[in-house]
Amino acid sequence: MIVGTEWLIEAAECDPAKLRDEALLRGLIDRVVADLGLKVIDSLWHRFPNAGGVTGMAMLTESHLTCHTYPEHGTATFNLYCCRTRPEWDWETNLKPILDAQTVSVTRIERGEIKIEDPGSKRSNLGFRSAGGRE
Amino acid sequence: MIVGTEWLIEAAECDPAKLRDEALLRGLIDRVVADLGLKVIDSLWHRFPNAGGVTGMAMLTESHLTCHTYPEHGTATFNLYCCRTRPEWDWETNLKPILDAQTVSVTRIERGEIKIEDPGSKRSNLGFRSAGGRE
Repeated sequence: MIVGTEWLIEAAECDPAKLRDEALLRGLIDRVVADLGLKVIDSLWHRFPNAGGVTGMAMLTESHLTCHTYPEHGTATFNLYCCRTRPEWDWETNLKPILDAQTVSVTRIERGEIKIEDPGSKRSNLGFRSAGGRE
Repeated sequence: MIVGTEWLIEAAECDPAKLRDEALLRGLIDRVVADLGLKVIDSLWHRFPNAGGVTGMAMLTESHLTCHTYPEHGTATFNLYCCRTRPEWDWETNLKPILDAQTVSVTRIERGEIKIEDPGSKRSNLGFRSAGGRE
């Protein structure tokens, strides 16, 4: 049973100063929320000390939106999980100017789906299906 | 640059009453945190009204741990994102008795890694690598 869609976004070769800028990252999350018509129940933000990055987590009626930045690596990662259908947000076009990202990768995963092991996959999938009612 | 590991967990055919039990789910998240020695900065919990499910989100110094339940589908999904190396938690062995889950699937994804499009993959990967410094 598919219960939602999760997008995993990786932005690399970003400007480290932007990855430490909590106000900028809050604005970015607000923009995703506004553009997609998401509803925020509550959110948490944390700026790690010294030259550390920022973590933001928004709890949505639609599930969640999170952001973690790693200025030391020039990398930011985002998760957007929606249990209701939403259009695609153009992460690449938006993140490149906002974070000065050189590369942006988006992976879309259906949530709730029990996955069968696929030895040919590049990803390690530890899942398996055991017989229903076995235990 | 790999900046962390994320585990996506799907538990299906669970007892719907357990998926509405916020105290039980808080206990489950507390157990993951304790077993793996994670550090919680702050957390958010929300119980959706009527026969709805529960959302829990823990912000960790190691990244995040989230839980969304869908009693109407007998499904729970979890995300555990760690930017520091952690042992595997045995989601299948633990979730089956706690949630009466019949099937548990765990997918492990390296975060921060820019993925090349793989048309043969069962998953839709919208990512691509554009030339560094192109824009």
